[in-house]
Amino acid sequence: MRYIHAMDIEIWSDVVCPWCYIGKRRFEHALAAFDHRGEVNVTWRSFQLDPSAPATTEGDPVERLAEKYGMSRAAAEAAQARVTANAATEGLDFHLDRARSGNTFDAHRLIHYAKSAGKQDALKERLMAGYFVEGAAIGEHDVLARLAVEVGLDEAAVLEVLDSDAFADDVRRDELEARQLGITGVPFFVLDRAYGVSGAQPSEMILGALQQAWTAAHPLQMVGAGDTDTTCSDEGCAV
Amino acid sequence: MRYIHAMDIEIWSDVVCPWCYIGKRRFEHALAAFDHRGEVNVTWRSFQLDPSAPATTEGDPVERLAEKYGMSRAAAEAAQARVTANAATEGLDFHLDRARSGNTFDAHRLIHYAKSAGKQDALKERLMAGYFVEGAAIGEHDVLARLAVEVGLDEAAVLEVLDSDAFADDVRRDELEARQLGITGVPFFVLDRAYGVSGAQPSEMILGALQQAWTAAHPLQMVGAGDTDTTCSDEGCAV
Repeated sequence: MRYIHAMDIEIWSDVVCPWCYIGKRRFEHALAAFDHRGEVNVTWRSFQLDPSAPATTEGDPVERLAEKYGMSRAAAEAAQARVTANAATEGLDFHLDRARSGNTFDAHRLIHYAKSAGKQDALKERLMAGYFVEGAAIGEHDVLARLAVEVGLDEAAVLEVLDSDAFADDVRRDELEARQLGITGVPFFVLDRAYGVSGAQPSEMILGALQQAWTAAHPLQMVGAGDTDTTCSDEGCAV
Repeated sequence: MRYIHAMDIEIWSDVVCPWCYIGKRRFEHALAAFDHRGEVNVTWRSFQLDPSAPATTEGDPVERLAEKYGMSRAAAEAAQARVTANAATEGLDFHLDRARSGNTFDAHRLIHYAKSAGKQDALKERLMAGYFVEGAAIGEHDVLARLAVEVGLDEAAVLEVLDSDAFADDVRRDELEARQLGITGVPFFVLDRAYGVSGAQPSEMILGALQQAWTAAHPLQMVGAGDTDTTCSDEGCAV
């Protein structure tokens, strides 16, 4: 019997990061084409783009973008249109004009809780769809609770997590590990804690990385001790 | 096949330093919990707390402590009791009242010799137990020889080391390197000549340092060039 090694895939990401949602789709396409897709463990790791954000960010999203980058309103609209067009190529119907941003710390705590219930990917997806497509206020507890219940999480347990500081340490540990790994932007895919892929790269490129990591973790199993008396190397042949 | 990088762990320490023995236990607990414990090289480095000490320090240890710090005899006894209590939490049965201190230069020379025989940790442990638990006179050649033979070192070789100035340069080089690294107190743990841990810190803290050093020495291998056009960071998203 062979030793089975599942590949650990960790994805640092924020709920309100447009390239993270686009990257999630590209990763899913890569995984669907990966021969060993049944032998991977995927974990969503926390990364807050703006840890100091208020629970709910008020104001017009386009105006905020224009201010942040010191660009005109027209330029900000054009930038959003480009991201929206990229999302559309992955089948995602972004409505950034009605996005209701906010602090994502509690969303990340809930994503950690969902892992313990086997619903992490479902919740991550639901929260991103809520934020980017439906205009759900991502920092508000009632919104988070509603979306969590929709993916089958227990309402009482969800409210208990939201009303406490449960999983806060897990969020902070993810962010500490991101710093230790040199991750400064998301999405960031880490394969077996050995390979990194930065950004929402094309599915083919992500698939190539999965294959490379798999090969590295599954070297040939040698039969016998090897025989240095019958080999040649860059130092010559055994004589 | 993966590139294997062993982590170098150097521990500056003196045989007669109580926190060094306590720190040795805490380090051992941290190492036992470290995933990569099989891939570390541990080297004990020399540090003499009192290079000018006579071979054997005469007199009552408590009285000497009181004199050294200008404290009352009662205060010195209380200080020893505190260290003894800390040692007990690590399973070490200190008897500081009967300690027979002295110059540790020859003990350090022997610890260097023991490394060449693959017995360095065993000798370091035996000398510390002899000094702190059993009241062995740490500066005397016959005592050093007896303890060295007990851990399996060759008696003739040990006597030859003690009767010469073998490994004296190694002791002095360790002490020079300590100064160069800014080490003024022991125990002091150096990981990959990059990370330092000063003092007998809790095992969890030492373990955290081991993990941090490991991560730093094993950066993620990036697949692809990275794509700054498809990432979000705390400075915003590529637009």
